[in-house]
Amino acid sequence: MKLEKLVGERFKERPSDCVIDSHALFVRGGYIKNVANGIYSSYLPLRRITRKIEQIIREEMDAIDGQEVQFPVVLPASLWEESGRYQSVGAELMRFSDRNGAPLVLGMTHEEAAVQLVREYGQSYGRYPFMIYQIQTKFRDEARPRGGLIRVREFTMKDAYSFHTSQADLEEYYARCHKAYERIFARCGLPEVVSVASDSGMMGGSLSHEFMLLTPVGEDSIAICPSCGCRANVEAAECRPEPQRDPVSAPLEAVYTPDAHTIEEVCNFLNMPKEKSCKAVVYEREDGGIVIVFLRGDREVNEAKLTAFLGCGVRPAAVTEESGLHAGCIGPVGLPEGVTVLFDRSLEGESNLCCGGNRGEYHFTGLDMERDCPGACFRDLAKIAAGDACPACGRKGIEISRGIEVGNIFQLGDKYTAPMGMRYLDRDGESRTPVMGCYGIGIGRLAASVCEARHDDYGPIWPISIAPWQLHLCCMRADNPETRACADRLYGELQKAGVEVICDDRTVSAGVMFSDADLLGVPYRIVVSPRGLKNGTCEFAARDKSFTEQLPVGEAAARAAAVIEQALAAARNDVNV
Amino acid sequence: MKLEKLVGERFKERPSDCVIDSHALFVRGGYIKNVANGIYSSYLPLRRITRKIEQIIREEMDAIDGQEVQFPVVLPASLWEESGRYQSVGAELMRFSDRNGAPLVLGMTHEEAAVQLVREYGQSYGRYPFMIYQIQTKFRDEARPRGGLIRVREFTMKDAYSFHTSQADLEEYYARCHKAYERIFARCGLPEVVSVASDSGMMGGSLSHEFMLLTPVGEDSIAICPSCGCRANVEAAECRPEPQRDPVSAPLEAVYTPDAHTIEEVCNFLNMPKEKSCKAVVYEREDGGIVIVFLRGDREVNEAKLTAFLGCGVRPAAVTEESGLHAGCIGPVGLPEGVTVLFDRSLEGESNLCCGGNRGEYHFTGLDMERDCPGACFRDLAKIAAGDACPACGRKGIEISRGIEVGNIFQLGDKYTAPMGMRYLDRDGESRTPVMGCYGIGIGRLAASVCEARHDDYGPIWPISIAPWQLHLCCMRADNPETRACADRLYGELQKAGVEVICDDRTVSAGVMFSDADLLGVPYRIVVSPRGLKNGTCEFAARDKSFTEQLPVGEAAARAAAVIEQALAAARNDVNV
Repeated sequence: MKLEKLVGERFKERPSDCVIDSHALFVRGGYIKNVANGIYSSYLPLRRITRKIEQIIREEMDAIDGQEVQFPVVLPASLWEESGRYQSVGAELMRFSDRNGAPLVLGMTHEEAAVQLVREYGQSYGRYPFMIYQIQTKFRDEARPRGGLIRVREFTMKDAYSFHTSQADLEEYYARCHKAYERIFARCGLPEVVSVASDSGMMGGSLSHEFMLLTPVGEDSIAICPSCGCRANVEAAECRPEPQRDPVSAPLEAVYTPDAHTIEEVCNFLNMPKEKSCKAVVYEREDGGIVIVFLRGDREVNEAKLTAFLGCGVRPAAVTEESGLHAGCIGPVGLPEGVTVLFDRSLEGESNLCCGGNRGEYHFTGLDMERDCPGACFRDLAKIAAGDACPACGRKGIEISRGIEVGNIFQLGDKYTAPMGMRYLDRDGESRTPVMGCYGIGIGRLAASVCEARHDDYGPIWPISIAPWQLHLCCMRADNPETRACADRLYGELQKAGVEVICDDRTVSAGVMFSDADLLGVPYRIVVSPRGLKNGTCEFAARDKSFTEQLPVGEAAARAAAVIEQALAAARNDVNV
Repeated sequence: MKLEKLVGERFKERPSDCVIDSHALFVRGGYIKNVANGIYSSYLPLRRITRKIEQIIREEMDAIDGQEVQFPVVLPASLWEESGRYQSVGAELMRFSDRNGAPLVLGMTHEEAAVQLVREYGQSYGRYPFMIYQIQTKFRDEARPRGGLIRVREFTMKDAYSFHTSQADLEEYYARCHKAYERIFARCGLPEVVSVASDSGMMGGSLSHEFMLLTPVGEDSIAICPSCGCRANVEAAECRPEPQRDPVSAPLEAVYTPDAHTIEEVCNFLNMPKEKSCKAVVYEREDGGIVIVFLRGDREVNEAKLTAFLGCGVRPAAVTEESGLHAGCIGPVGLPEGVTVLFDRSLEGESNLCCGGNRGEYHFTGLDMERDCPGACFRDLAKIAAGDACPACGRKGIEISRGIEVGNIFQLGDKYTAPMGMRYLDRDGESRTPVMGCYGIGIGRLAASVCEARHDDYGPIWPISIAPWQLHLCCMRADNPETRACADRLYGELQKAGVEVICDDRTVSAGVMFSDADLLGVPYRIVVSPRGLKNGTCEFAARDKSFTEQLPVGEAAARAAAVIEQALAAARNDVNV
């Protein structure tokens, strides 16, 4: 098509509200327009990209025996009540009522709808396993949308659901889907995406993986072991602290610590390293109870682990006087009754620690966990940190990277099938509950992630497999009849050769023409100019600057078509999975 | 794929809640499953059909210079306030609030979102005309969903929006889009769809057309002139009654009419034909005022015309004593003050009518409109009826047909661009408001309409262009190694030839196998059976029974592939538009 007719505006200035590059480039390049907080419209270039991503995903889902279906965006609340999530999911689930007062929700994920669709079909063992998927709009009322298409409220997602008669069968399929995901990301131009073990969170189930694009602008933290290659989301990574028991334990002693409340202030005051302190972090459970987590002063609480252990949500608590607790001076010895106390593994066996004295302006020194907290049960409640031991191989030196989650896969077990009453008759005539897996990819976030990983200062560098167009034809000096005629001819030849061309034959400066081309990020470019035509040539170049060739104009279309066909085939086939 | 693995259940019994055939067949054939009132999930066969319909629509929209975009499903109420529709549209617009209390709506149409997307882009005349479209989920909180996918609450729609600098340019584009719509319906297998002039309703604007599949199960009524071919939705069709003035006017005379209230009762009592009566129909305006429409007793009020004339919605009013009106006895002479009175054209010049006497149990006879209602203004407020004069050519004999609206196109003028402040600088430096057109097709309703028009007692007969699969391969007696081997070989050959095959090699009875095949409605079928294999042949047949051939098994795949290719080409090219 002609660039002149492309709806959308392109401009040079980075919008001040764009923190990450893909957001800025999507706004500057006429890919998206903000409609409301975390809600966007897409222009043609992005729609062409997302359609190609969707097609790649379809092919790979079909290749692992997936069947495309479509669930509604608007779901009856009764379905979510069946699974229990109508109550358990927070404000991110959009709840409302129709004209008759019937409660509805906007689907933010479709496990319930999937079970509803196949509950009758799946009544006999012979019909298993099967997988259904859809590509559909979802809405999640995020508290803090950010990063352009990285974290939005409305998004398009491929969500897939598989059903099995045994955990072993689920695991086998899960592995097939894991491989399909690797192919999908590689085909979309992100072979570097890695899978990491993750916390299942709201989805429930036992085992799950996130597929991460490692990038400093990512929202997630990933622990990576340089020794064994083990990767896990920091939320899920097990901590294996090493006991640091001193040979001699000092006696427990109360010390007056005026104005020292934070662990830093206390350790400074007492001239002790943070590793020799026992820190208290106070939470309030959803149901109102107070939970105190004690952990070594250099450690942070992993709230995902805490939530999973408690089986309910928590929020940081403000310590009030009525609680009987002394804010800034809470320690494990002499606590008032009626609060839940948890100990992190980092304290196990430790001695000669400082800790809160449970009265105003006092701390203890000489805390010995074995001696002073007999019977304490130590659990893994802390965040893994850089330099820690690897939970898999035990070697020290864990590295923490940032990542964008571009996909996830979950083994759900019977979390949905059991409460929703899905049953099948097994070979032996017994009625059983099937197990389920689910598999998601956010289409818009994936497009933004590709941009994040493949761009320069001037715009995206789209991989050929998902590029909005394959070739950008620039006609310099379109007011010159000779160059225009040559560009017109090339445009026709390229289209005839099946190349997706966007043709810029506006009478604008070379600066505007090239900066627009950079913003559209089309992988190959042909430039027709009066200077080149003097020698009968035009310029054929790659957006990633890997080559620039001068081609006889008569050969340009065929050469470009061949290069593009080769690149497309490589993107399809060079997936070593 | 193998039918054995197809998720969804097929069965023989017509569900009792299915009024129309397409609904029954979609449920019986495993195409849809009801999730809530007017909300459905789709299984693979329907998703394959809708994807093909979507692709045909994309090709035709792109061919008239459309650019695919994507608008959000969830829109901020503020956008709808800009156009005034947040107030003017009724309960079918789903309104709710997010976690921060910001009011949102579910998009039921996207004129506002379209203007928001291009308001900045369209600031210069040089950028016009342009058209953007999307294929996206919509939600309309219908009071009475019915007919399966014919009238639902959640649906997928192609909606397109064009922008122009003049009415002439809009009309030219409107005509192009009209032709594109004819191609779309023809390519989807419904060349018989006709366009009819329509009332613009909620969308506003001056001129619009609906594309109708004429069928007795349709919800809309269409007036068709057998003389000139003129077609219009009954809601929009102009009435041209002929004056029937008697040579002599009797005097106005009050008659005691005990227990006669309806027009039938009164005319029976007075022994007069309904055509010689003046009927009153009482409405309440949205703002509370009472409106009385007088029209000839054999005529019905066209509420679309009444709403358009009044500029606000109306509902039938219950006549209370406080109004000063006498229910069942309302006439144009001696009415109390303060009510709005409208006269339909059917009364113009009429004489010797009976009408209400405006007191209990009394009617008048001898009403002469000219003499007794001087100054009355007669307007077109009645429904056209069978036998009426054609509003275009004037000849009598209008026929009324029922139809399903499968698409619509609207000339919107500046109904959205003006209130939303969209402006452009014209060639002469003047700031002007662009005009707009919009163009919709409901994907699911189109699929159901094709089924409605192309089915027999046993299932749909899908046109090749949108069929879920192209060929249904039946392997009779799959427990016989020879037939199974032959079917397997054919399955491979057909797939290699690029044919979309669904293969049924279950060990089920011929009855089950053929009834399932009929329900899937795949246009071509190959049956491999032990009997045929004795002669080295298999059966190749069309679902529409147009042919049955016995083919040597070695030639079957090539022959079927050739027939299918030819049929596909015909569906693409034989569109005489």
